[in-house]
Amino acid sequence: MQAQFITLDGIDGAGKSTNLNVIRNWFDKRRLPVLFTREPGGTPLGEALREILLNPATQAGLRTETLLMFAARQQHIENVILPALKSGVHVVSDRFTDATFAYQGGGRGVPFADIETLENWVQGSLRPDLTLLLDVPLEVSMSRIAQAREKDRFEQEEAAFFTRVRDAYLSRAAAAPERYALIDSNRDLALVRQSVEEALSRHFQKPA
Amino acid sequence: MQAQFITLDGIDGAGKSTNLNVIRNWFDKRRLPVLFTREPGGTPLGEALREILLNPATQAGLRTETLLMFAARQQHIENVILPALKSGVHVVSDRFTDATFAYQGGGRGVPFADIETLENWVQGSLRPDLTLLLDVPLEVSMSRIAQAREKDRFEQEEAAFFTRVRDAYLSRAAAAPERYALIDSNRDLALVRQSVEEALSRHFQKPA
Repeated sequence: MQAQFITLDGIDGAGKSTNLNVIRNWFDKRRLPVLFTREPGGTPLGEALREILLNPATQAGLRTETLLMFAARQQHIENVILPALKSGVHVVSDRFTDATFAYQGGGRGVPFADIETLENWVQGSLRPDLTLLLDVPLEVSMSRIAQAREKDRFEQEEAAFFTRVRDAYLSRAAAAPERYALIDSNRDLALVRQSVEEALSRHFQKPA
Repeated sequence: MQAQFITLDGIDGAGKSTNLNVIRNWFDKRRLPVLFTREPGGTPLGEALREILLNPATQAGLRTETLLMFAARQQHIENVILPALKSGVHVVSDRFTDATFAYQGGGRGVPFADIETLENWVQGSLRPDLTLLLDVPLEVSMSRIAQAREKDRFEQEEAAFFTRVRDAYLSRAAAAPERYALIDSNRDLALVRQSVEEALSRHFQKPA
């Protein structure tokens, strides 16, 4: 089997951090060579762009932000993801292009077709072999984030935003069920872990 | 007449700085409202990206660099160029997308079709109404730059690079003569100035 490109995605509060450890343990147990990386970031350039995006003085517009995301991704693919895959190392990325479709697309209104244009420009034929999509209902997402931050940041508008983000994730998964493992993360942690492990095992048992 | 979007472009050493002043005087004399801007840069984000591109630690690859150029351009268009044009102010930009076609495309090998994809993504239907393209033979360009910098930076490889850059500029001008004023900048300054002024006057006398 060729080295696999696996991504973990989902709305804030869906439990990515916890399940990243589940994935790490799954690979460790099998002694499979694997590289863990994340977006945005993953390269010095990506980290520099991340700072630019967070700096209020630069005020990147929505379309500019989308281009910067893909610029960081281009560098991430060329310098990190492809070299690993080519040397036979599996890659697990914490977020990838699905997040751009969900947040900049569904959440903020960049047309999906415009994001697809940049996806093709930057990635060529590279797509994740498997995307573990963690999903929780909006209330759960928002209450989990609220525990981590200040509650008053969450206004009605943000609920509508996160609903659009979640809907974009779910519709992408529905459109390509062979690529996505949709995981209900609104359950007991042990059950979620089991689902993540099963999805990985199923994927790695597929004929190449 | 609607506010006009005018760009000044050409290889290094073609005399852009000198002729920027010629253009400034032409507008001043007619008391036409005009905004001068430049690429890359032109916005706080553009300046931040410029620093990233110049920082050796980030080592942006060629396609990443091309995306960053267009990200800066998106912000430049949204925050500077379009607002000025919409309020009736002419805009003169020192370099624009022709430079991406010439340097990243012709010079370094990004396929022109890939640059066109990003041009359409970022600019929609926005194109310069007039591009003043300053041209000099390669030897003149290189000797003019050599006077400004250290001579030993100019090796054979760079001559080939600048030849490709110049060829890209010239072929773009040849393909759309109605948009480009090709100006032979390898002449007495007074004659070059006269050509620039005539090109502007001709353009502003066109029926709208």
